[in-house]
Amino acid sequence: MRVLGVVVEYNPFHNGHLYHLRKAKTLINPDYTIAVMSGNFVQRGEPAILDKFARAKVAANMGVDIVFELPFVYCIQDASGFATGAIGILEKTNVVTDIVFGSESSNLEVLDKISTILYEQPKSFKKLLNKNLKKGLSFPNARKFALVEYLESSNYEHNVMDILEQSNDILGLEYLNALKLYDSKIIPHTIQRIKAGYNQKEFTGEISSATAIRNLIEKNEMSKVKQGVPSLSYEVLLREIEKGKAPIIFEDMRDMVLAKLRMMKKEELMQIDGVKEGLETRYSKFSKISSNLTELVNNVKTKRFTLTRVKRTLLKIFFDLKEKDMKLYNSHGPQYLRVLAFTKKGQELLGKMKDLSAYPIITTPSRYRKIYNRLNDKLLSSNKRYQSIPEIYLNQIEYDFLASNIYTLLYKNTNLSSYEPDKKEKVIIL
Amino acid sequence: MRVLGVVVEYNPFHNGHLYHLRKAKTLINPDYTIAVMSGNFVQRGEPAILDKFARAKVAANMGVDIVFELPFVYCIQDASGFATGAIGILEKTNVVTDIVFGSESSNLEVLDKISTILYEQPKSFKKLLNKNLKKGLSFPNARKFALVEYLESSNYEHNVMDILEQSNDILGLEYLNALKLYDSKIIPHTIQRIKAGYNQKEFTGEISSATAIRNLIEKNEMSKVKQGVPSLSYEVLLREIEKGKAPIIFEDMRDMVLAKLRMMKKEELMQIDGVKEGLETRYSKFSKISSNLTELVNNVKTKRFTLTRVKRTLLKIFFDLKEKDMKLYNSHGPQYLRVLAFTKKGQELLGKMKDLSAYPIITTPSRYRKIYNRLNDKLLSSNKRYQSIPEIYLNQIEYDFLASNIYTLLYKNTNLSSYEPDKKEKVIIL
Repeated sequence: MRVLGVVVEYNPFHNGHLYHLRKAKTLINPDYTIAVMSGNFVQRGEPAILDKFARAKVAANMGVDIVFELPFVYCIQDASGFATGAIGILEKTNVVTDIVFGSESSNLEVLDKISTILYEQPKSFKKLLNKNLKKGLSFPNARKFALVEYLESSNYEHNVMDILEQSNDILGLEYLNALKLYDSKIIPHTIQRIKAGYNQKEFTGEISSATAIRNLIEKNEMSKVKQGVPSLSYEVLLREIEKGKAPIIFEDMRDMVLAKLRMMKKEELMQIDGVKEGLETRYSKFSKISSNLTELVNNVKTKRFTLTRVKRTLLKIFFDLKEKDMKLYNSHGPQYLRVLAFTKKGQELLGKMKDLSAYPIITTPSRYRKIYNRLNDKLLSSNKRYQSIPEIYLNQIEYDFLASNIYTLLYKNTNLSSYEPDKKEKVIIL
Repeated sequence: MRVLGVVVEYNPFHNGHLYHLRKAKTLINPDYTIAVMSGNFVQRGEPAILDKFARAKVAANMGVDIVFELPFVYCIQDASGFATGAIGILEKTNVVTDIVFGSESSNLEVLDKISTILYEQPKSFKKLLNKNLKKGLSFPNARKFALVEYLESSNYEHNVMDILEQSNDILGLEYLNALKLYDSKIIPHTIQRIKAGYNQKEFTGEISSATAIRNLIEKNEMSKVKQGVPSLSYEVLLREIEKGKAPIIFEDMRDMVLAKLRMMKKEELMQIDGVKEGLETRYSKFSKISSNLTELVNNVKTKRFTLTRVKRTLLKIFFDLKEKDMKLYNSHGPQYLRVLAFTKKGQELLGKMKDLSAYPIITTPSRYRKIYNRLNDKLLSSNKRYQSIPEIYLNQIEYDFLASNIYTLLYKNTNLSSYEPDKKEKVIIL
């Protein structure tokens, strides 16, 4: 049995995603395909443009047999934390045999060489990295230059600079790293991605970036959007807009985020993951003299702290994600397998997973307390095989619920702000 | 020298306020008149309909020589805490000789009799009060019935029931109580108020309640508003509306308050002043299943916890006002005299106060840190007479700034959300 795993955000699902999914299937020829997908907040440090249920529904319709939710605490992390969560889910299903990810270089050999260095952290590499960090370089840049220097000194011939500047390659490196971390037997594969596509802002027709499509949705240029996404994705999007549930944008969080920041003391800010080296002062000061979030993040960002990092950290501040907790989450990985949607084929695979997965599979989130109690009750032989640590399990899943309950406050239709989606929405079955 | 002190909210300043102010002046014939006025949040547990600077400007134009700001931590308390703050300000000026307050009964003798019982808390009264509280009565009701029983048992003839059911009389009782607390020499006076005027919702022409006028402003029925308020009050109101700074309503806080509540754990809620006896569960539960604040407070309220109390407590939760801190604030009273506006005559009086007041007078809030340092520096003989406790001073004034910086987030003109009013607005001089 071959099971293909992919890591996605589908924010929203567009033609490029469909192309990628089909290509990956052609490459692997899997019996089943599963995806781990960001929830209501995404790795750019923003709320998703439409909610996780709508996006999962599209994914299942487009050929993913099971859609798992990436727990919230991993969604808004940098490439490394994001990969730790995503690969953790795929690995702990205990059924995934292959993963495929997009890569600008599509050179698995070089990616693997680099990720081995990052994983093993040889002393001389670490020294170079620290030297660069002390110069005031951002972490991605410090790491990039340290790697180049390290590889040069070990007479490695390949030009790695390119790889370390491309978003999919960087994410790919972290996937490889995470596979090592979990001592995983999953086989990684890459498929070619067109350079710089990810952040391209302009609409480029049938194959456009998610950024470009989100911009069009925001401007309500729906006829163009229609060209860039599969028809089902378009229909779901339209329906969500009609209901007043989409589009959700970063700025919709203005009141709650600015209010929270203006109230926080520097000592509290300094406990948050990623807030250090004076960032606490910048967030605190600029929260008072910025009128909106775009202004705020542009004021806070520096050469060293990039815009995306500032946005991700802003969400961590808002959600009170402390450094000590994040360390725990990142060293233990996700603790459950929450299913958002599945197909008939997916149901078959879920049946097999019931006896195989290392974590409890959650299809009815309202039962999360019962599962917690059972995880705590070591006497029940049926749960012995679950590796989940009960307290971490509880914290992580409650964060998913919280993220949903905050997300509903962003709906234009405020009547829907009270509907507690994780309690009310049933798992989607196709 | 006679100095008249009044306690006001002027939310907004209407004809009834002008009538009351003139009547008080006729009664006392003072050399100067000063007011202590709520800041950006008021005792109903809501943001003020227009900001403290606009309201102070109107007050100074209408015949108040100095407008002091009631520190935020007292603005959103029940009658007792509100009075502690307001009378504290008037008392610590060391110049006020008389206060006048509106009263439905206008029977100072009976009010004083009752307030003495409340102040001295005789054992048999306390017993009756506790008995009633245990029955599940709200505090105001438990107190009311205990007083009636206590006075009956001591053969006091007057019917006090009426007094204890009227909002101005209740507030009056607390003013008298606070005067005792500060061992004040200020002489209290009452002027008759028409029963039930305070909460009357309908517009009743030239003399309408603040509630009725706020409702009209919200509905943009400005021609009616014009009939109910002095022309300068109307002009200021119009200008604030034009600037996008008014009207501000309770529901404008929806996002920030619901987000905060949905994120709080019950243990955190239980530390907040006034959150007890299961209220933590009600706030927590209903924050998730209410779409807006009106829904929330109506869901949370019970027989025992009245709507206004629920709203005040909601603001305490939002601003993180813990029980332990409030106890400190209420036992020490306000620690500074912040001036929002003064007239030429007021300037004269401020000159005298410089040598007399028990607390530092603040006209330039940006100097608040310097004043803090000087309060801490006991060696400076010029500050020896100030009774302020530096740490409490600092907490209280920083809460005023925070309240302003949250209030600006409620402006319809979001460009003004970044202007830090307490730094940018100069004291108003007429």
